[in-house]
Amino acid sequence: MSEERAPVPRLGQEPRGTYLRNTWYVAGWASDLGTQPQQRTFLEEPVALFRDAAGVAQAITGRCPHRFAPLGHGTVVDGALMCPYHGLRFSGAGVCVHNPHPGGQLPDANLQVYPLVERHALLWIWMGDAAKADASLIPDFSWLSDPKWEAVRGVTVAEGHYELYSDNILDLSHANFVHPALVASAFTEGERKFWQNGSSVFAEYIRLNDHLSVGISAVMGTEGRRQDFYGLVQWHAPAVLYFDFRAGDPGTPREECTLLPSLHAFTPETPDTTHYFWATARDYKLGDAEFTAAMRGALEFAFEQEDMPIIRDSHRLMRGADFWDLRPVILGGDGGGVRARRMLQRLIDREREASAAA
Amino acid sequence: MSEERAPVPRLGQEPRGTYLRNTWYVAGWASDLGTQPQQRTFLEEPVALFRDAAGVAQAITGRCPHRFAPLGHGTVVDGALMCPYHGLRFSGAGVCVHNPHPGGQLPDANLQVYPLVERHALLWIWMGDAAKADASLIPDFSWLSDPKWEAVRGVTVAEGHYELYSDNILDLSHANFVHPALVASAFTEGERKFWQNGSSVFAEYIRLNDHLSVGISAVMGTEGRRQDFYGLVQWHAPAVLYFDFRAGDPGTPREECTLLPSLHAFTPETPDTTHYFWATARDYKLGDAEFTAAMRGALEFAFEQEDMPIIRDSHRLMRGADFWDLRPVILGGDGGGVRARRMLQRLIDREREASAAA
Amino acid sequence: MSEERAPVPRLGQEPRGTYLRNTWYVAGWASDLGTQPQQRTFLEEPVALFRDAAGVAQAITGRCPHRFAPLGHGTVVDGALMCPYHGLRFSGAGVCVHNPHPGGQLPDANLQVYPLVERHALLWIWMGDAAKADASLIPDFSWLSDPKWEAVRGVTVAEGHYELYSDNILDLSHANFVHPALVASAFTEGERKFWQNGSSVFAEYIRLNDHLSVGISAVMGTEGRRQDFYGLVQWHAPAVLYFDFRAGDPGTPREECTLLPSLHAFTPETPDTTHYFWATARDYKLGDAEFTAAMRGALEFAFEQEDMPIIRDSHRLMRGADFWDLRPVILGGDGGGVRARRMLQRLIDREREASAAA
Repeated sequence: MSEERAPVPRLGQEPRGTYLRNTWYVAGWASDLGTQPQQRTFLEEPVALFRDAAGVAQAITGRCPHRFAPLGHGTVVDGALMCPYHGLRFSGAGVCVHNPHPGGQLPDANLQVYPLVERHALLWIWMGDAAKADASLIPDFSWLSDPKWEAVRGVTVAEGHYELYSDNILDLSHANFVHPALVASAFTEGERKFWQNGSSVFAEYIRLNDHLSVGISAVMGTEGRRQDFYGLVQWHAPAVLYFDFRAGDPGTPREECTLLPSLHAFTPETPDTTHYFWATARDYKLGDAEFTAAMRGALEFAFEQEDMPIIRDSHRLMRGADFWDLRPVILGGDGGGVRARRMLQRLIDREREASAAA
Repeated sequence: MSEERAPVPRLGQEPRGTYLRNTWYVAGWASDLGTQPQQRTFLEEPVALFRDAAGVAQAITGRCPHRFAPLGHGTVVDGALMCPYHGLRFSGAGVCVHNPHPGGQLPDANLQVYPLVERHALLWIWMGDAAKADASLIPDFSWLSDPKWEAVRGVTVAEGHYELYSDNILDLSHANFVHPALVASAFTEGERKFWQNGSSVFAEYIRLNDHLSVGISAVMGTEGRRQDFYGLVQWHAPAVLYFDFRAGDPGTPREECTLLPSLHAFTPETPDTTHYFWATARDYKLGDAEFTAAMRGALEFAFEQEDMPIIRDSHRLMRGADFWDLRPVILGGDGGGVRARRMLQRLIDREREASAAA
Repeated sequence: MSEERAPVPRLGQEPRGTYLRNTWYVAGWASDLGTQPQQRTFLEEPVALFRDAAGVAQAITGRCPHRFAPLGHGTVVDGALMCPYHGLRFSGAGVCVHNPHPGGQLPDANLQVYPLVERHALLWIWMGDAAKADASLIPDFSWLSDPKWEAVRGVTVAEGHYELYSDNILDLSHANFVHPALVASAFTEGERKFWQNGSSVFAEYIRLNDHLSVGISAVMGTEGRRQDFYGLVQWHAPAVLYFDFRAGDPGTPREECTLLPSLHAFTPETPDTTHYFWATARDYKLGDAEFTAAMRGALEFAFEQEDMPIIRDSHRLMRGADFWDLRPVILGGDGGGVRARRMLQRLIDREREASAAA
């Protein structure tokens, strides 16, 4: 813990993928991390998540430096994470604080500590230089923890590169084909616009005076009625997306339409697998459990049974090749995804240059 | 579609195996391809099969050039294959004929088109230079579509290199050991002869005045009676085999014996997996569904539960090594398989030389 | 079989791991090898085990030199192992003794013969130079075949490098954490000592006047009573371990305590998988089937449901890296494992140098 300790080495193997490191990734839903620790892999690194004696969520290397057991399968004792194999205990600062064996000498092992912030009902992890971790950079998803909003949400590990997943949200024109029950033709036939602002990328879909799909109409309570609708996706590097979906009777000012805010956050596990966190909230029918269950079911089906298989299959057909090396045909709907990919590449390049210069 | 368009690039990754390309492979049973397209892998290349508006079977690259989704999981709309992800539609000529998105510009994407011929109840695909595709080279399996014959048939993906599967048919001496219920000692103890004619390889098995197995006797209705039998296997490069099996009362001229014609066609999926198409027909008891079911069951068991596991295990024990590098012991019964392997190697070498010269 | 025959080549591929070859590995429980042969992989080599006409256990290459079928899936005919594919038969001397095909010439194929000794209820296999195989080097586990002792035993294939498994037995301080029902705090809190004698490594655990765990007390019939206990592990290279566990009323001389002898033998299948043979015996309640079943259940649970998962996970987190390259933290309890690893490395190095010099 002293200032002069040697830099903590990474796990010793070069990662297969290239990642943006000095950024916030979603590590989990805060309420899913209780007294039982979690073992995860982020950016190919094993990470153990646990809550210390004060209930503060901590993230350290998920591999014991003694015999390489998964620390995240251990238990918390006196606020420290106890290895499930031989019982060494590590604090959230990554140091061994207890050795239960004769003598009890504490080994000089400093585990990687990952800055972890609990905010907006989520745990946000910083996989880069801890000195640069700035919680004010976490995007605003305050509706996720605001009692005025009731969210349905999910988390799963999805096969496929994480950029294929953020592309999918930025190009909502897929919805007509992949989600026939949930979406009408509006996302393909409406107006759309893509732009960039700072390091964010935006995709906007507008369709006035049209029928929404049976699925969305049911959620919004507008079955059989024409609506204006507005969809705005905001991409935050590397792959955290906010989807602002609004609909209202034709002519309703956009700000007065009914809003369904959504989160789609993608955290790479490996180059071939992705942690997929999603949520959609409403500010009506609060506490209506039956309605909530139906809404969750419809969205879970769309994301896990419709999006994930086609992205998995596309990923497999890429066979590990670089996206651009495959010379993809670019359509108008790729305006968001292509901007996001270029921005992310610039950010990664810049980070690598800075790191090489230092 | 113009004459001057650039040569269509292959999928960008070198295949792991070496294959004969300018030849006909079996792509499927014609009647299995209905209104629903199929996604397949042949020679490591993804291929989409579908029927156009006229019902003509078509084969194009099974990977959308936009976002790499499996086109064979799409649907046919107005005779074109619609991508399941964003709805681009491709004709059997491999060109994009419809873009459902605003503007609707057709991307300049020419997919690989594979010549595909429907003949003898099968779909035959040409994985090489389309200009050289000559349907007259398709071997004659007309009995498969002749109403005088009733065939039982199957298709499966088998683990193991495809040449191990054609070896298996050319060396029927395995039958006594692998198919104890189906075959008596005749295939091992009878006369046998191997020869070559043009690019075909032949293996002949003759056994006079002996008992057939319980299984074959039941199919032929000759339980308990001695028979003469004649087996002739004809191998067509790369791995399409015809098996002419005849039996009759001792002394019956060969031409007058009861014939059971069989197809065994092997199409490489990868170096480790093979599409296995098989059929056996009879010209008696036509329409006898119970007999047909029993015959299908016996053959399916023999090919899928007896041949496939031992070939799979042999393939695994080869651990990816080249067949000849393992210095196999050669027995008399290998006379067909060895000739076929050498012929196939010559044809592949010749094709590569011609391609390098061009 | 003549003296001048060429050296039998190995299977042609370099093994991924490095192994001690001139040593005895456990190949199986002798009574598990009956009339049906067995197909196994030891040190990455396929091995067929069978009993010849005299009932003597034999071990030869488990891959037919003709078409690479797994000989261990064959059957024994006239004391020879018949290939399941084309019926060649091989004797325990590795030579082809019968060719069932026309002509019947015996191919000149000498399979690798592995010296195999049936002793102490086990089959012991020598994976190195047969001329050096000396059965007197087999460690003494005579209690396994002594009617005064009744053993419960098991065998399974465990994921993880075999040295991780022998480390696990040498460092019993894991028991308090991994086997909470079986072990009390004694293994962590007691005295321990590690030493080496010849090429054996010893680990000793002594705890006087303490409570044993509920599990061990139940097996020993000492529930609720304080006991002295003595644990002595003896490691034989490369990974055969004897565990001498004794307990008695406080003050009982060690030799007069109740003894529970155990075997833990690990035979590498691949660098990532290990054949795990275990047994524990008692010399009381002989023939008490209910007690035997309870004892077997408790031990099987401990080894297969508690040890194996954590070793598997640790192995995966090592991601194929060399143990020392990962710079493990060394604790006092590693005194046995580290000695054993160094001894094994010395023995392997010495064997390689001798082989290079020859």
